[in-house]
Amino acid sequence: MKERLEKLVKFMDENSIDRVFIAKPVNVYYFSGTSPLGGGYIIVDGDEATLYVPELEYEMAKEESKLPVVKFKKFDEIYEILKNTETLGIEGTLSYSMVENFKEKSNVKEFKKIDDVIKDLRIIKTKEEIEIIEKACEIADKAVMAAIEEITEGKREREVAAKVEYLMKMNGAEKPAFDTIIASGHRSALPHGVASDKRIERGDLVVIDLGALYNHYNSDITRTIVVGSPNEKQREIYEIVLEAQKRAVEAAKPGMTAKELDSIAREIIKEYGYGDYFIHSLGHGVGLEIHEWPRISQYDETVLKEGMVITIEPGIYIPKLGGVRIEDTVLITENGAKRLTKTERELL
Amino acid sequence: MKERLEKLVKFMDENSIDRVFIAKPVNVYYFSGTSPLGGGYIIVDGDEATLYVPELEYEMAKEESKLPVVKFKKFDEIYEILKNTETLGIEGTLSYSMVENFKEKSNVKEFKKIDDVIKDLRIIKTKEEIEIIEKACEIADKAVMAAIEEITEGKREREVAAKVEYLMKMNGAEKPAFDTIIASGHRSALPHGVASDKRIERGDLVVIDLGALYNHYNSDITRTIVVGSPNEKQREIYEIVLEAQKRAVEAAKPGMTAKELDSIAREIIKEYGYGDYFIHSLGHGVGLEIHEWPRISQYDETVLKEGMVITIEPGIYIPKLGGVRIEDTVLITENGAKRLTKTERELL
Repeated sequence: MKERLEKLVKFMDENSIDRVFIAKPVNVYYFSGTSPLGGGYIIVDGDEATLYVPELEYEMAKEESKLPVVKFKKFDEIYEILKNTETLGIEGTLSYSMVENFKEKSNVKEFKKIDDVIKDLRIIKTKEEIEIIEKACEIADKAVMAAIEEITEGKREREVAAKVEYLMKMNGAEKPAFDTIIASGHRSALPHGVASDKRIERGDLVVIDLGALYNHYNSDITRTIVVGSPNEKQREIYEIVLEAQKRAVEAAKPGMTAKELDSIAREIIKEYGYGDYFIHSLGHGVGLEIHEWPRISQYDETVLKEGMVITIEPGIYIPKLGGVRIEDTVLITENGAKRLTKTERELL
Repeated sequence: MKERLEKLVKFMDENSIDRVFIAKPVNVYYFSGTSPLGGGYIIVDGDEATLYVPELEYEMAKEESKLPVVKFKKFDEIYEILKNTETLGIEGTLSYSMVENFKEKSNVKEFKKIDDVIKDLRIIKTKEEIEIIEKACEIADKAVMAAIEEITEGKREREVAAKVEYLMKMNGAEKPAFDTIIASGHRSALPHGVASDKRIERGDLVVIDLGALYNHYNSDITRTIVVGSPNEKQREIYEIVLEAQKRAVEAAKPGMTAKELDSIAREIIKEYGYGDYFIHSLGHGVGLEIHEWPRISQYDETVLKEGMVITIEPGIYIPKLGGVRIEDTVLITENGAKRLTKTERELL
């Protein structure tokens, strides 16, 4: 954690930033080792970083934080500390209101975004981070297998989701990485078909998309099954998505761009005539956030590097009829992509 | 939902706002009836409101939205639509980056916050909203009772939380309103002691703080128990917190300020000599967000009105030793506060 702060301080020096204010909870965690539920803010002044927390978070923050912790009663105390900062480094996610308040109450003259240095740090995972993500993936793998067992004709999607989320927690997850998607029948054509009250029927395609938040890090996996025997159309789109997913996993390696990787899967799906039904990007980075850099899309030219963790998740969605998505979380290594989620992909 | 839009349009007229951009998911839901997982944005132009969603959310949004839905491939299309807006109405939570982009890419000249009109609308709950919150409270009541049954010597806090969160979902909740707090022994002195791997021990105070998100609305309840028989100190602080909570619930009524209500509980705890151990505000509004207006604190002069839903949750926290908090979600009616969470409070 010390190195992270050093890189941030170097960025401050190079960009004439006098102080930095960090508010986004995952970044507060990244630099301090704690992320108080009721808010916590890091102020970097010179090369000194301090974590400020409301009174009710003080005892817990003191136990967990790698940075010195100071408690405040009113947020006005923060405005006071930042008073007359010439150039304040902030996250692009910081709210308009907060920026306006810093101008008015702290008389901050100029703002500079620190997103680039945080991105450059967080996008490459350390050995320790990878080990945690592997564990998060292991929990997700178990949950997908459980979901496949739980899915039977007549059961509500929501019941399946409740059961697998319970299992993830019993296996050590803090919580689901996102609202578990159990999308059956026509709902499988909705890429974000969060589990609903719909009952699962015989012949339904069921998209299972879930992840675990474990020790602050996320995992992400999708599998698609059919309740009973697949029909010809279902099998056709399944095979296409499977081919696209496998070829993209095989192709992913350091040195190629995110866009190039996206194209590999996209071209396969296009060749089979389903290009218009692959309505999202191929994947996204995974770490402290479930969606982070790089975006594996036509709009991201980020060069893949060792230590990046991304998802590879092509899909085909035919409105009313149904959809298929197959997704793994993978680690970019010098030898190519290593699947961190390992559940079998040949499920039809 | 039509009336909400009308009030917003009136506010725009009165404040010379040409267009409004709404991005915060709960507000998008409030005005459209849907809140796409992958993002959704409402643009109000004159008295026309439109919901813009990324392609992958289009089918689901069309089904749920009360507003016309338009899909976009790249966010640049939004910048184009807002091009040359003289005065854009935005939420104070909108990110610094987005505001900068609107300046550069859409040539927006001026920004005005629309938070006041949204607050005035959302702070008073309609009959329909109250019915949903009542159901969310009913689910939370059942969950607290289940937690009390689940808590036994030797069990891990996390196991108790996993079980009650499962039950909430099986009872219709979308998910927990927030990370369930099961804080036992010395951890009960941490107001935000989210369930950990700690095993519950005989003689522990255990703070149980949970809520259900049901049909987009939240509930919030806290109860504190002792595993086995309470000692004298535990009973003493329990009785003080109970008295403060009951007297505040009895006193809450339209016309008083949030600050006055906070003071009622705070003074009681002070009189018993524990003022320094009540380290948070008395409560907060509950609705689409788990923490919303009004804040029941020394810093909020909001006048309580019929239709507001708030929590009343005094606590005493003695570092290392333990803590007690008792909380209900209540509705402000013309006759005073009506408890929406109904679990018995005399638990020691």
